[in-house]
Amino acid sequence: MTLQSTLIAEPAALSPEALVEQLARDGRAAQRVLAKLTDADKAAALRAAATALREAEGEILEANAKDIAAGEAKGLSGAMLDRLRLDAARLAGIADAVDQVAGLPDPVGEVIASSERPNGLKLSRVRIPIGLIGIIYESRPNVTADAAALCLRSGNAVLLRGGSEAIHSNHAIRAAFAKGLATVGLPEAAIQLVPTQDRAVVGAMLTAAGLIDMIVPRGGKSLVARVQADARVPVLAHLDGICHTYVHASADAGMARDLTLNAKMRRTGICGAMETLLLDTQFPESESVVAGLLDAGCELRGDARAQALDPRVLPASEEDWDTEYLDAVLAVAVVDGIEPALEHIAAHSSHHTDAIVTEDAESAERFLAEVDSAIVMVNASSQFADGGEFGLGAEIGIATGRLHARGPVALEGLTTYKWQVRGTGQARP
Amino acid sequence: MTLQSTLIAEPAALSPEALVEQLARDGRAAQRVLAKLTDADKAAALRAAATALREAEGEILEANAKDIAAGEAKGLSGAMLDRLRLDAARLAGIADAVDQVAGLPDPVGEVIASSERPNGLKLSRVRIPIGLIGIIYESRPNVTADAAALCLRSGNAVLLRGGSEAIHSNHAIRAAFAKGLATVGLPEAAIQLVPTQDRAVVGAMLTAAGLIDMIVPRGGKSLVARVQADARVPVLAHLDGICHTYVHASADAGMARDLTLNAKMRRTGICGAMETLLLDTQFPESESVVAGLLDAGCELRGDARAQALDPRVLPASEEDWDTEYLDAVLAVAVVDGIEPALEHIAAHSSHHTDAIVTEDAESAERFLAEVDSAIVMVNASSQFADGGEFGLGAEIGIATGRLHARGPVALEGLTTYKWQVRGTGQARP
Repeated sequence: MTLQSTLIAEPAALSPEALVEQLARDGRAAQRVLAKLTDADKAAALRAAATALREAEGEILEANAKDIAAGEAKGLSGAMLDRLRLDAARLAGIADAVDQVAGLPDPVGEVIASSERPNGLKLSRVRIPIGLIGIIYESRPNVTADAAALCLRSGNAVLLRGGSEAIHSNHAIRAAFAKGLATVGLPEAAIQLVPTQDRAVVGAMLTAAGLIDMIVPRGGKSLVARVQADARVPVLAHLDGICHTYVHASADAGMARDLTLNAKMRRTGICGAMETLLLDTQFPESESVVAGLLDAGCELRGDARAQALDPRVLPASEEDWDTEYLDAVLAVAVVDGIEPALEHIAAHSSHHTDAIVTEDAESAERFLAEVDSAIVMVNASSQFADGGEFGLGAEIGIATGRLHARGPVALEGLTTYKWQVRGTGQARP
Repeated sequence: MTLQSTLIAEPAALSPEALVEQLARDGRAAQRVLAKLTDADKAAALRAAATALREAEGEILEANAKDIAAGEAKGLSGAMLDRLRLDAARLAGIADAVDQVAGLPDPVGEVIASSERPNGLKLSRVRIPIGLIGIIYESRPNVTADAAALCLRSGNAVLLRGGSEAIHSNHAIRAAFAKGLATVGLPEAAIQLVPTQDRAVVGAMLTAAGLIDMIVPRGGKSLVARVQADARVPVLAHLDGICHTYVHASADAGMARDLTLNAKMRRTGICGAMETLLLDTQFPESESVVAGLLDAGCELRGDARAQALDPRVLPASEEDWDTEYLDAVLAVAVVDGIEPALEHIAAHSSHHTDAIVTEDAESAERFLAEVDSAIVMVNASSQFADGGEFGLGAEIGIATGRLHARGPVALEGLTTYKWQVRGTGQARP
């Protein structure tokens, strides 16, 4: 019997470190079972989990009602309560998303590269699961199922640590999910939820090198910052999305208006939203781009030349160039060509997504080559920075680190590889 | 003028953190120049560096003589002095190795994957350099040129921190290397050597997240352990090479004798050397395998059943199963089939390289699939675990971590990727 099924009643019996160690050992043991499963096995397990989530609608919504009641009593904001709230439609969406992940191609077993050496040794690099993934998240209970589905689809076990506001919802979702897995013979510890809200457990997870292989934080900036600051386990994350759009001298005026409006205003609260607009002095339609944003209700904070474009543009402070507003606010600077635009982006980008609008192929290719961000775009809205939009089927997150996986990360980013060497008795000379 | 050329005279003027920050800023600026170079540019720069190393033979050997004299005065061991010593032939070998790296294919710019979305967006993932690589190493001066060549070939700047025993040699090699780069217009700060032996600088490098993108320790276990324990920057390394060879019931007896002898005794001090031998009870020739190793001068430490194979086998303690001897010593256990062999390896392997000797295809494939190590082998000596032997042309190291790159790491492991998105005005619905 694993901790997951025994401990919920008495989690205080173990220190945070001992608790994480025990959960990790159970998870790793379950992962060794997962690692042997076929594509079809894993897909069937996830479909069973989706079915179990649908069948548990009553329990899950009841658990969620407890969380909502507790949240209202605690005075959570309307936005927080909305993120927390489940209803039949949202739960159906969660189950459907699990089914969708079941339908994604399995990256495990893919031969990344192979070669034969002159001595006859046959080498191949083969994709394998990473192992045990830790997910640290806040109030959205859908993450419990979403993240678990992506981890399990790629053969990883998952250790979930959700926010205290969603504790009943998360336990109910995990229980249903695990019940589904059990119907096809998968160990319950493949998906575990930390059975206590003791915040010290988060610290123990972050330092559990060798026990947890990778941690993905899902939530606001303060959560991600804490995880990045304290983790000794590799972290897949982005802290900021300070995304730039540079409108080149040659840009099509209509396209520039449409793309800047979309990049900023479609949804202002997502990490791919534009936060700084760079207008080329040689672009003749800057006034109409600025007016379009202002007319749509966006506050603009500009340098002196941007302020001269429209009296409604407020003055920008130095801080504005490094601010992720996540709101209908935009910093605007006028730049003297692509070189200063690249310099501004190099100095202020958070290396998430930066875009150029241009009709000049050479400038486009230069921007794509020289901007050092996880995602670089030509003539497209930065709001496309998303695993679904990139055709990955889903995403566990967007990463702005430089190693392992960058940009939208889905199943492939949850795998690593090993070298398989097939010989016929070769000794090394 | 960079720190590299100004600071050697007065490194004490800056705190370790400020020194590393300044070196890193210079290195990152140089890397932005490197990132724009073509394959041919980088190859030419390395060939110029190789030429400069040959031309500086006098200065480099003179500097090395100072290190040797200081080492002898300090009472360094013969083995240490041997690692430190350069002569004309060794220096020629170092220059030749730089030329060889120049001849390797450039991974930068490779399109890893591309796709077109239904909305017409064209996506590609393109290989790019990682950025600034820190190398922390001990007494081998050849690492100065070897590691720098691999980093630069893949478009990365490098910050080297060598051992104090090799300080004069390292400075002379770096100066010659940089002089070669300068002849083709590359910035000197592309290859920097920490200009002080203050050990606190190592700590500052290890915590320079955001300034140094990856650290590769090159040296003994205590160096690697310290780097892994203290680093906040991603580390590419292996701590141990506790490599197993399992001789299956069906193994060819001659092959088993040859491969175990080679895996252990070819060179006992390398990380791919076998440290534990697992003999199947059903393998009929265990006595001759054991005798072959003993006769070759290897000390064997066995469990009770291994001791019964030959009176010369000493008793093993629990510790022996987790020991990397790097010497003519081997732990030997007798196991009841593949299942206990896999269990022993799962419990004791350092996930570096593990091998099976078998004539049974099913057991071979099971071993390849289930052993969770960076390198898994069938019917080959674990001493093949090496970038050169794997056809990579060189190696910056062997990694046993689970993310980014595993096993022998060469140029590809020194790259990451970005997403390039080419649109025609797409806004996100």
